[in-house]
Amino acid sequence: MIQKLWAEGLGTALLLVGVVGSGIMGDTLAGGNVGIALLANAIATGCMLYVIITVLGPISGAHFNPAVTLAFWLRGEITARLALLYVMVQVAGGVLGVWATHAMFDLPILQASTTMHRTGPAQWWSEGIATFGLLFVIFGGLRSRPEAVPTLVALYITGAYWFTASTSFANPAVTIARGFSDTFAGIYPGHAPAFIVIQLVAVGIAHATLRRLFAVKG
Amino acid sequence: MIQKLWAEGLGTALLLVGVVGSGIMGDTLAGGNVGIALLANAIATGCMLYVIITVLGPISGAHFNPAVTLAFWLRGEITARLALLYVMVQVAGGVLGVWATHAMFDLPILQASTTMHRTGPAQWWSEGIATFGLLFVIFGGLRSRPEAVPTLVALYITGAYWFTASTSFANPAVTIARGFSDTFAGIYPGHAPAFIVIQLVAVGIAHATLRRLFAVKG
Amino acid sequence: MIQKLWAEGLGTALLLVGVVGSGIMGDTLAGGNVGIALLANAIATGCMLYVIITVLGPISGAHFNPAVTLAFWLRGEITARLALLYVMVQVAGGVLGVWATHAMFDLPILQASTTMHRTGPAQWWSEGIATFGLLFVIFGGLRSRPEAVPTLVALYITGAYWFTASTSFANPAVTIARGFSDTFAGIYPGHAPAFIVIQLVAVGIAHATLRRLFAVKG
Amino acid sequence: MIQKLWAEGLGTALLLVGVVGSGIMGDTLAGGNVGIALLANAIATGCMLYVIITVLGPISGAHFNPAVTLAFWLRGEITARLALLYVMVQVAGGVLGVWATHAMFDLPILQASTTMHRTGPAQWWSEGIATFGLLFVIFGGLRSRPEAVPTLVALYITGAYWFTASTSFANPAVTIARGFSDTFAGIYPGHAPAFIVIQLVAVGIAHATLRRLFAVKG
Repeated sequence: MIQKLWAEGLGTALLLVGVVGSGIMGDTLAGGNVGIALLANAIATGCMLYVIITVLGPISGAHFNPAVTLAFWLRGEITARLALLYVMVQVAGGVLGVWATHAMFDLPILQASTTMHRTGPAQWWSEGIATFGLLFVIFGGLRSRPEAVPTLVALYITGAYWFTASTSFANPAVTIARGFSDTFAGIYPGHAPAFIVIQLVAVGIAHATLRRLFAVKG
Repeated sequence: MIQKLWAEGLGTALLLVGVVGSGIMGDTLAGGNVGIALLANAIATGCMLYVIITVLGPISGAHFNPAVTLAFWLRGEITARLALLYVMVQVAGGVLGVWATHAMFDLPILQASTTMHRTGPAQWWSEGIATFGLLFVIFGGLRSRPEAVPTLVALYITGAYWFTASTSFANPAVTIARGFSDTFAGIYPGHAPAFIVIQLVAVGIAHATLRRLFAVKG
Repeated sequence: MIQKLWAEGLGTALLLVGVVGSGIMGDTLAGGNVGIALLANAIATGCMLYVIITVLGPISGAHFNPAVTLAFWLRGEITARLALLYVMVQVAGGVLGVWATHAMFDLPILQASTTMHRTGPAQWWSEGIATFGLLFVIFGGLRSRPEAVPTLVALYITGAYWFTASTSFANPAVTIARGFSDTFAGIYPGHAPAFIVIQLVAVGIAHATLRRLFAVKG
Repeated sequence: MIQKLWAEGLGTALLLVGVVGSGIMGDTLAGGNVGIALLANAIATGCMLYVIITVLGPISGAHFNPAVTLAFWLRGEITARLALLYVMVQVAGGVLGVWATHAMFDLPILQASTTMHRTGPAQWWSEGIATFGLLFVIFGGLRSRPEAVPTLVALYITGAYWFTASTSFANPAVTIARGFSDTFAGIYPGHAPAFIVIQLVAVGIAHATLRRLFAVKG
């Protein structure tokens, strides 16, 4: 079991290195063109997701996301105790990943985001769709082509950085960790709880509805 | 059968979220550089296509496109009744996807496009090539490597956003739905019928010609 | 055999639609930033290559390139007569693809390129490396992982648009056809013969050297 | 064995063509927007990595990197003698690749980089993470899905160009070779030794820690 926890912690840390690091680099190099920054951010995040899910999937299942862990608990595929441990190491790993990234870019380690626009009903609706879509991809992929799940999640998130208005956090551990970074990828910590509530509600809706869609073999 | 219809409706809705959402985001962030906006739009659309075709293919066949449904009807692989139901949920799903996207970006839900340049013989010729190419990819892919069809369609459309002059609608449901969005991806509703006629004609030409090309094993 | 010729002609036409179409679109939309134009051009070309090689490979072998056809003739895997027919339909298909593209973008059909910088020893050295690399990828891929050849060629050319100074023509049919287009992807027809000679010489060098490298199983 | 050495030398030369060539092209075309240049550089490098690892993997193992060769020696999977020969041809191949690239772009063949910002504790920490991550990907990939290693390495490095502050050299042969190029991808030769020391230390840390993580089947 200890390997599973190391895998979840290390994987989530690397995920945040991917998200926050490429956000900082994009912001620095794009010369003020946010489109170029987000393009780099989206591509680098997708690359990292493919890598960590492929490598760590056979060890821990490669959740890296309390919303995904919750979904697997609802499906009865993980015990409550292990699920709680997963969530703890995901959050801890995510924050450590942010700090490791700040050190790489020679920034103050401890920060709190002042990015204020990630709130309001439209953003919450966006997070709801983003999280529903992520579970659609994971549950549907496990049913239709399990070996493609790393590619499915990576491409889904790369696309969702662009097609959702909130750039698809869709992950409570990522949401918390990004609160600790006053950089491109940050979110004001006071706005994080609403994102997390929406993400968890979307898990419930996805669990209730998608099981019917994916229940019968075509 | 009800799962098939849910799959076609949900898939087409997600496709439009991908197309219109990334168009709005690209337009907003690209700082006036339409090239960057279209690059993001093309990549995000390709990501979404790969995801929905992989996940929903085993359920409904993953048409999400009345032109594709017509082609399978011409091949005798779907009944007329189911084909009509497919087309209805595709169109409805597409429009709902556009509306869900407008809500994410805090825009008025009900819109009609005022994008006026998607008309004229050159654009129609472009749509004809785009749709012929899409059917070439689907029929040829089903013959040569069926498991690659999600990748084939995703890459074809990502490329065709750039190599066709009309950015490859190639889909009557998408054409109708994009008429409902006065954003980057929109098309003036009065110009939609000509696009749809061309797309359907291209299906007939592709059906008549490609069956010979793909008839004999190399 | 007639299917093989149709496949080579149609595939080469589509390749040129991909190359020239995305070049025109990139040039139009990139707002003067040639980097964005070439990025779109490279990605769209790679998408098209993956598609046409996957779909048509089982029919004709998916050469779409007289240099590749020459290489297979040197290996004794195609007769001289069929090779000559391949080259003829490749060149004809390529030119028709350029003309179809001009029609899509509402440009004069008949053009001759005035792009003057694709000449001189550095460019020729670049074409030599580009063509050698293409054959390295094809012969090596056929030996190590044949099902990956479409991906290998697509990614190689996408990369080579950037890492060679000539943007990797590496294909006499493409070189001739691009002479007929006074757009982003064009080459002054007077400079085409030197490119073609270099490409054919590189085939000879690759044939002579790579067969040793790939002769023994590791 | 001679094939193995040719494969390592040719592969590393091609890798440097990919890295330095696309860096020069990006820098030339991006109109001063370093974000666009790095995006092209990252994508082209990833393309080249996929190609050379897929094609040459079955011959030499496709190290192209003294850090990777050291890691395989620590694992007892390569003899000390062959490892030393690998490192020698990797370094020689890398430098020759840089020179071949300069010739393509009509630049002086012999150069020494004057890029001065690749030094200091933050950059070293970045190289440490970059190299640890590369070995995580290789060792983990070999354990979980060996056939995906070319994709894993290619996507990891494409992402790491963006999410590490040093743009992920993670390779002593590449570090030395880039010292010979006063272009976009260059590194001042006086700063190369510290990078190489960090890279080798990271190999030791990765070897000691990852073997536990990857020891037990999940």
